[in-house]
Amino acid sequence: MRYRGVVSYDGTNYSGWQKQPGRISIQGLLEEALFSLTGQHISVTGAGRTDAGVHAYGQVFHFDCDKSFAWFARSLNSQLPADVYVREVTEATPDFHSRYDAVRKHYRYCINCGEYDVFLRNRCYQLGHPLDVEKMREGAALFKGEHDFTSFNATKLAEMANQVRTIYSLDIREEGNLVILDFVGNGFLRHMVRMITGSLIALGLGNTTLEDLEGMLNAADKEACHQNAPAEGLYLVQIDY
Amino acid sequence: MRYRGVVSYDGTNYSGWQKQPGRISIQGLLEEALFSLTGQHISVTGAGRTDAGVHAYGQVFHFDCDKSFAWFARSLNSQLPADVYVREVTEATPDFHSRYDAVRKHYRYCINCGEYDVFLRNRCYQLGHPLDVEKMREGAALFKGEHDFTSFNATKLAEMANQVRTIYSLDIREEGNLVILDFVGNGFLRHMVRMITGSLIALGLGNTTLEDLEGMLNAADKEACHQNAPAEGLYLVQIDY
Repeated sequence: MRYRGVVSYDGTNYSGWQKQPGRISIQGLLEEALFSLTGQHISVTGAGRTDAGVHAYGQVFHFDCDKSFAWFARSLNSQLPADVYVREVTEATPDFHSRYDAVRKHYRYCINCGEYDVFLRNRCYQLGHPLDVEKMREGAALFKGEHDFTSFNATKLAEMANQVRTIYSLDIREEGNLVILDFVGNGFLRHMVRMITGSLIALGLGNTTLEDLEGMLNAADKEACHQNAPAEGLYLVQIDY
Repeated sequence: MRYRGVVSYDGTNYSGWQKQPGRISIQGLLEEALFSLTGQHISVTGAGRTDAGVHAYGQVFHFDCDKSFAWFARSLNSQLPADVYVREVTEATPDFHSRYDAVRKHYRYCINCGEYDVFLRNRCYQLGHPLDVEKMREGAALFKGEHDFTSFNATKLAEMANQVRTIYSLDIREEGNLVILDFVGNGFLRHMVRMITGSLIALGLGNTTLEDLEGMLNAADKEACHQNAPAEGLYLVQIDY
C-alpha cells in the first residue's frame, strides 16, 4: 500500500529534509519512526528538499508499507521529537508520487523589521530595519509569470536542463513589524525563494534598483545574484496536487 | 548610579528568573553579563520572579553601577544568548526599586485549542480541545476586583501576611485557534495566574461549574484549587510604575 503523509517541522535543529550521513534530517527521522513502528526499512520520498534551518507547515511525502495502522499519524508522532509533527497519513493510489505529481508549491518568507524579538529567533529573518514595501511590490511584479530563473538558482550543476519556472503569485503583506512574502509557483530552484527575497530586501532597503533587478533576471546568469536571505525566515507552506 | 532595565526572554531553556545554584537563570545571566562588561559583581533585582519555562516580554530590573556605557543595552546583549534580550537600560533615580515601585503587572496566558503546532511548542499550552470561551468569560468575571487569593497561591508559607490582590482586568480573546487570557493586576501570588487559568480551562472544558469556581475563591483555602496550567503558556508582558 502506498501512503501519502503531510509533515510540519521547525527546521532549526535539523540539517534539512534530505538524509545525510552523520546529520539529523527530517527524512531520516521519518524513516527511523517507520522502522520503529514496522520493523522494516521503508524509504520516504519528499515533495521537495528543504535546506538546513528551513521550516515546513505542510511538506508532503510518500512511502510504501504493507502494514496498516488505525492511527498512523499518531503512531508516527509518538516516535518523533516535539519539533516534527505528522499532520496526516492517508492511503494513496499506487502511482502517487509526492514530487512528480506536485502541481503547485507555496513558500513563505518572514522578515522582522522591528526590534529584535526573542520569540521570533530562528523563525524570521531579524532584519531590524524598515523596508519600502511598496517598492518591493514593484520588484515582485518582475518575477511573476514564466521566466528562466538561472540567475536565482544555487544548484552547482550549471547545465540543469530546465531552469524555467512559473511564479503564479508573489504577494507581500505587512503585519505589525513583519513583512511577509508569499510565493506560489509550479516549482522553485534551489535557493530561488531566498535569492529573490534577498534581492527584494536590497530593493526595499534602497541598496539596488528595479532596473538592476530586471537586468539580473534577464541575464539568466548564475553569477548575477549574490543575495540569499537567511534560511530561518523560509517556510514550505503547502503543496497542491 | 542606579539603572533600570527591561528584558525579554524565552524561558524555555532556563530555571526561571531567580538565581539558583547549579541552574541557569535570567538573573544569573544578567549578573554574568554585567561582570563581563564591568569586572564588578553587581546584583540585579527583578520586579517579579518568573518560574522555569515562563516567558517575558518586559521584565523590569534594577542595579547599581558606577560605570556608564554609551550603549548599555547593546553591550549587555553582546554578552547574552539569543533567547535573552535587554530591550533598554536607562538611568533611574537612586531610590528606584523594580519590585517595590511596581503599581501594575500584566501577564498573558496562551492556549492552543487547535491541532498541535510545532511552532507553538514551549510558547503555548497545547490543549488541542475547543473551549467554551463565553463560559470562561463568565468565570473570569468572578476574579476581577479585590479578593483574598489564598486558594490560588502556591507559596508554601501558609502564613503569608497578605494574600489580597486586585485584578483590574481579565480579558479573554480568540485569535484563530488560540485562546489568550490577559491579566492586569496590582500583583500576583506564586502560580496565581496559572491556577486561575487552569480553573478557567476546566470551566471551558465543562469539567467544573461557575458555582465551584466561586466556592473555590471564597474558601480562601490553599487546598481548594488543584489546577495549574503549564508554565510554557505564561508571559510576563509589562510592568507599570
